[in-house]
Amino acid sequence: MARAQQDLALRLEIEELYTEYAHVLDNFELEQWPEFFTDDCLYQIVSRENRERGLPLALMRCESKAMLADRVVTIRQTQMFAPRALRHLVSSLRIAPPASADGVDVQANNAVLQTLVDDETRILSAGRYIDRLVRDGDALKFKSRTCVYDTVMVPNSLIYPL
Amino acid sequence: MARAQQDLALRLEIEELYTEYAHVLDNFELEQWPEFFTDDCLYQIVSRENRERGLPLALMRCESKAMLADRVVTIRQTQMFAPRALRHLVSSLRIAPPASADGVDVQANNAVLQTLVDDETRILSAGRYIDRLVRDGDALKFKSRTCVYDTVMVPNSLIYPL
Amino acid sequence: MARAQQDLALRLEIEELYTEYAHVLDNFELEQWPEFFTDDCLYQIVSRENRERGLPLALMRCESKAMLADRVVTIRQTQMFAPRALRHLVSSLRIAPPASADGVDVQANNAVLQTLVDDETRILSAGRYIDRLVRDGDALKFKSRTCVYDTVMVPNSLIYPL
Repeated sequence: MARAQQDLALRLEIEELYTEYAHVLDNFELEQWPEFFTDDCLYQIVSRENRERGLPLALMRCESKAMLADRVVTIRQTQMFAPRALRHLVSSLRIAPPASADGVDVQANNAVLQTLVDDETRILSAGRYIDRLVRDGDALKFKSRTCVYDTVMVPNSLIYPL
Repeated sequence: MARAQQDLALRLEIEELYTEYAHVLDNFELEQWPEFFTDDCLYQIVSRENRERGLPLALMRCESKAMLADRVVTIRQTQMFAPRALRHLVSSLRIAPPASADGVDVQANNAVLQTLVDDETRILSAGRYIDRLVRDGDALKFKSRTCVYDTVMVPNSLIYPL
Repeated sequence: MARAQQDLALRLEIEELYTEYAHVLDNFELEQWPEFFTDDCLYQIVSRENRERGLPLALMRCESKAMLADRVVTIRQTQMFAPRALRHLVSSLRIAPPASADGVDVQANNAVLQTLVDDETRILSAGRYIDRLVRDGDALKFKSRTCVYDTVMVPNSLIYPL
């Protein structure tokens, strides 16, 4: 039954990371978003179907923190889209036993609810995060984050990262 | 990495408070609802749009625990509405560092799912809690709770507190 | 404010159990599902309405782990249905004080989101788990799990356990 204090501290730190990530996106603080990742990160959004078939197709794919920052600029400067509210619901954080010094594997379920002006709230996407976290200085960061979505999404309906 | 035991105990206490709140409302134990608040509390439900514009308009606003109790009586005695089931989903509790003796600031995402008789389950509202908690005797209570909703709600469709 | 280390370890163990359960079902690892239960378990899915009226009707009812295993075989071998993705959202774990050696009572809110091929993501069900957990060897297992659903479900739309 005993559980090391260190394990517990790590678990709380992971929960806080996921919580901050959700709030930053729901607040549209996009410039903060790349700061959750390591310099050489991989961030991708892939469909459940493509992932199961082993297809490399991704709806969004960024292979470094610099590419994430570019993506933010693109969203801020060039895209035209209707105002909306987003709300992340994240649950069932599954933390794999930390087997190596390479990082910690974590999975979590998520749903993103979207509200357009004068419309009811709808489920924009449901899916899973499949992540590898590493310590980067004092902070835990995403070495890789793969957002696997169940929801059939028209590509141009996805504007913001998940 | 070290985390004080006291911080951890506070965190668990906050999680339990939010859990109890959700279950009490989902169980329609409305008479218990004011007990989550301090005597001089502020409880309000405001739209995301009005909040961002700094407008003081609120869909519901109670400025004391006594007003919350009045609200419960109103719901119990005078309103006519179809039976329903409500289900709160709360996630991403963001606990601000306890900077002062005035209390603890907490935010959380929420969605409330509503099921009317013979209808499918729908999203009644999605949004955020913005709260200040204070210690009141042995218990943590809401000094203020602001429910910011993304969802465009027809005012009379909201009967119960969020 | 002090909280025993043992209480905390139990709480984390319960959270991990609920997390594993959700991931196993969302991954369609159905053969693992009976392993969450004791040999003499009770698993049932009942409507909120029937539960409140005290009616014994259940949409699914298994009175032992062997019956759960039978159910899995039935799902795997005989049923015909469209492929789908499921996503469990579980929150507000309410852990009753462990009053006796008989186990721990836990309740939690849940929603299951379902995505059929070429269709948007919908709420398959919303409801509550009402559970009793017991220690079985080294692991915590469900002595009973009652899934109370708010959602009006056509009986044959429920294929997988909740």
